[in-house]
Amino acid sequence: MSDRINAPFLRNAWYQAAWSDELKDGMLARTIMNEPLLFFRDAHGKIGCVEDRCCHRGAPLSHGKVVENGLQCGYHGLVFDVNGKCVEIPGQDSIPPMAKVKAHPVVERQEFVWVWMGDPALADEAKIVDWPYHDNPKKYPHRKAMMPIKVNYMMMVDNLMDLTHLGYVHTKTIGGNPKIHVEAKMQAERTETGARLIRWLLDVAPPPTYVRAVGFTGKIDRWMDFEYVIPGSVKQWTGALNVGMGAVENREQEGFHLHLFHGITPETETTTHYFWSAANGYRQDDPQATDALYNEIHPTFLEDVVIMEAQQQRLSADPERPLVPIKADYALTHARRAFQKALDEERARMPTAAE
Amino acid sequence: MSDRINAPFLRNAWYQAAWSDELKDGMLARTIMNEPLLFFRDAHGKIGCVEDRCCHRGAPLSHGKVVENGLQCGYHGLVFDVNGKCVEIPGQDSIPPMAKVKAHPVVERQEFVWVWMGDPALADEAKIVDWPYHDNPKKYPHRKAMMPIKVNYMMMVDNLMDLTHLGYVHTKTIGGNPKIHVEAKMQAERTETGARLIRWLLDVAPPPTYVRAVGFTGKIDRWMDFEYVIPGSVKQWTGALNVGMGAVENREQEGFHLHLFHGITPETETTTHYFWSAANGYRQDDPQATDALYNEIHPTFLEDVVIMEAQQQRLSADPERPLVPIKADYALTHARRAFQKALDEERARMPTAAE
Amino acid sequence: MSDRINAPFLRNAWYQAAWSDELKDGMLARTIMNEPLLFFRDAHGKIGCVEDRCCHRGAPLSHGKVVENGLQCGYHGLVFDVNGKCVEIPGQDSIPPMAKVKAHPVVERQEFVWVWMGDPALADEAKIVDWPYHDNPKKYPHRKAMMPIKVNYMMMVDNLMDLTHLGYVHTKTIGGNPKIHVEAKMQAERTETGARLIRWLLDVAPPPTYVRAVGFTGKIDRWMDFEYVIPGSVKQWTGALNVGMGAVENREQEGFHLHLFHGITPETETTTHYFWSAANGYRQDDPQATDALYNEIHPTFLEDVVIMEAQQQRLSADPERPLVPIKADYALTHARRAFQKALDEERARMPTAAE
Repeated sequence: MSDRINAPFLRNAWYQAAWSDELKDGMLARTIMNEPLLFFRDAHGKIGCVEDRCCHRGAPLSHGKVVENGLQCGYHGLVFDVNGKCVEIPGQDSIPPMAKVKAHPVVERQEFVWVWMGDPALADEAKIVDWPYHDNPKKYPHRKAMMPIKVNYMMMVDNLMDLTHLGYVHTKTIGGNPKIHVEAKMQAERTETGARLIRWLLDVAPPPTYVRAVGFTGKIDRWMDFEYVIPGSVKQWTGALNVGMGAVENREQEGFHLHLFHGITPETETTTHYFWSAANGYRQDDPQATDALYNEIHPTFLEDVVIMEAQQQRLSADPERPLVPIKADYALTHARRAFQKALDEERARMPTAAE
Repeated sequence: MSDRINAPFLRNAWYQAAWSDELKDGMLARTIMNEPLLFFRDAHGKIGCVEDRCCHRGAPLSHGKVVENGLQCGYHGLVFDVNGKCVEIPGQDSIPPMAKVKAHPVVERQEFVWVWMGDPALADEAKIVDWPYHDNPKKYPHRKAMMPIKVNYMMMVDNLMDLTHLGYVHTKTIGGNPKIHVEAKMQAERTETGARLIRWLLDVAPPPTYVRAVGFTGKIDRWMDFEYVIPGSVKQWTGALNVGMGAVENREQEGFHLHLFHGITPETETTTHYFWSAANGYRQDDPQATDALYNEIHPTFLEDVVIMEAQQQRLSADPERPLVPIKADYALTHARRAFQKALDEERARMPTAAE
Repeated sequence: MSDRINAPFLRNAWYQAAWSDELKDGMLARTIMNEPLLFFRDAHGKIGCVEDRCCHRGAPLSHGKVVENGLQCGYHGLVFDVNGKCVEIPGQDSIPPMAKVKAHPVVERQEFVWVWMGDPALADEAKIVDWPYHDNPKKYPHRKAMMPIKVNYMMMVDNLMDLTHLGYVHTKTIGGNPKIHVEAKMQAERTETGARLIRWLLDVAPPPTYVRAVGFTGKIDRWMDFEYVIPGSVKQWTGALNVGMGAVENREQEGFHLHLFHGITPETETTTHYFWSAANGYRQDDPQATDALYNEIHPTFLEDVVIMEAQQQRLSADPERPLVPIKADYALTHARRAFQKALDEERARMPTAAE
């Protein structure tokens, strides 16, 4: 049911596993869906994702190192390639077929490392979320982060598809007057790949941060646009144009434009890797503008972490206990239902799959 | 059985939840009987005790704040009154009846905050323990504390109703010669509300601390009087008069008088909130006397904490394993039996109540 | 099966409990096979091993002290002798027969304290491992240590009976070229009390540390000799003689001789007390030589700790999951089989013994 707080894992989907530059040193150990994984770049630049456990004696491969022909275990020297196949066993000539470690499909694209945790035969790269703002760093200078959060991954989706909390949680940062957020015109809908939430504030005074960012002198039309893509991506476009430019009809004009990507990947049932990238789409020639943007967003998200981790503790104490919905929940309800439909479909295809 | 080490919770009873002055900042989060609670003083000075979990999305209410009409959740702004009733939901006009949080009867009296964790219909304020020494701070200047202890709450009662340990545990503080404590005349009995233990040391030399406190020059008659009130209160009166004044017949004469209240409240099965208040009934005009008393008692109780927490670890490893009673246990056995009778009665009234 | 990673406890055997000098202060608390134990030396110099839990109220006896007639509990003063018998109860004259704490046979010999955790009737001191190198500190100056390791105890045996890992784990210390260790002539066999592994390197250049130790000028014959004695002892003899002295036929000649004892005792299923003693059998008149030896071995063993604890975490996540054996495992397989045979025999004798 969509009411289940600690959502199970949807397996047949691409999840963000890392930012590419986290792998610059050759290896990255990270647990996804309770499975300890090792991402590594081999001597030829190709990325592999293998279980972080040697098939021989169980030692974590993350204690090893990348060598010429692959990844060498740090205990007894077995070597594995990016597909998990053992290619060398010290002290013996033949390699038995069972000498291999589990591997997952992995794709490096647009500064992301994506991993597929389900059936490899279903891993279709065409389904990977597109984030064109990383393709042109001159037009969209950006800065990225990864935050570990102790909540179920769908709690993070809930939080992003909910704007009511801004006035209560973000009192020290972007919150402003709670009433503005609660009463603003809001629209939520299901999409083919998830759900979408748009909120418009028309003909309003620009907030001080917008004025500082792009120098608005009069009133503006503002929007906050969140598109949820199942299971763990949220594409956010926050922006504003001068009143009279026709923002509702055409937002692609000069003004204030912020493109935020949110990557949400389950580490365990109650912990999540939260990736985000913030692209400065308004003062591209000023490197300090991108840093200033990052420095404004980071503490805001830390406020979310505090309240959500506390919330998760209460919910985990009795996950089946009912909650009382309010009207402001409707966008997150759309997102949860879209997710649940995908989960039901996955389970229908694999009726015996145990969580 | 009275032998069960980790005593279950007796629900229909008043427990000390806090000292009043712990609530001076408006809110106090404290877990009692495994239930995370929030105590708060509303804008009109009235105290409420609600479950520390918003009915909407489960966020702890302790992350919110007190506003004009009650307690406001820090996630989405719902407001609750001292009875747990929701009085405001941002973004909607009507409040559904299920929008409420659990609340417990709570009474503020004589510097205590008392809470009733059982059936509210049975919460009779007349049954709250009286501690008149807080009513007259001039006659009984006092100082209070709260210590968290990692033991089952009845272990703390056991420890207070047992004087044999003084000579072994409190070697660095009040212990003195073990034989004195073991061989002293002791009397224990059941009372209507619990059990009582009185020990007399007649015609003995005063200990140095008593001499320093009130200037005894000759021999004295000393007593230690502990009254256990089910489930979690112990009223202690320790004192001494000059020999010949007839202490046994009438203790209410000038001499050394120390009134100690012990409040013992289960946080979980194996952790306890231990409150105590020490009233200086002998040198009331000297503020340093009250501080000196406090500073003598505090390290003594820390010695109890060390041995009891170690004891609890062993007992929790196998709670059903039998213990070997000794003669010196008889007062604590009275207290345990009185408690068990109350527990049996509560369970007989609510035969389906599961612990 | 010998493949079971987290080996159960073999009870009817002597295990090293401590080094004698750990007990110089009178008491040592240590958990063995999940049982919290207290080792103490009474006023007459005799060592006892009792459960670290008073029979009266469960307090750990390690909070007490040694008095004239035994070990006194620090809570209520009961006194126990080295056999666990209660010899004094404050406040009463007679001591009931049930007033006693569990005791285990214990033997102090050759600087070791050995304990027997099984049926006391089977405790035969003749079966204690002999380590004569402690009898003559002039001929074999030595230094000892105890390392706590978070692995099942048989994992430590596996590690000692496996030389392949030297070139991968000990890269910063004794490792050298991995190929040397993998390709060296190796011999493994079962013995009456366990298993043995000998590796010879004949007619090779001496490693720098050997040259520094004894001044080899030409080529040498080297050996590494590991004898596993069920359940938790490994006797290591590492040495070298000048080529031509006939090392294979008679190693007892002047050269490089290092005698290492490894004592491996289960604290819990997944934590181990690892004792070791290193005897300098080559430059006995130089105290710095013994310290230098110790200082070379200690960081080497810490390298083992790091990889093994990481390995244990992976294995504990799914202890029944199969491993893929390689040829280099054959000596540890001998040791595991010898252990398993002893375990099977113990269980056949006590068919109802539950682990």
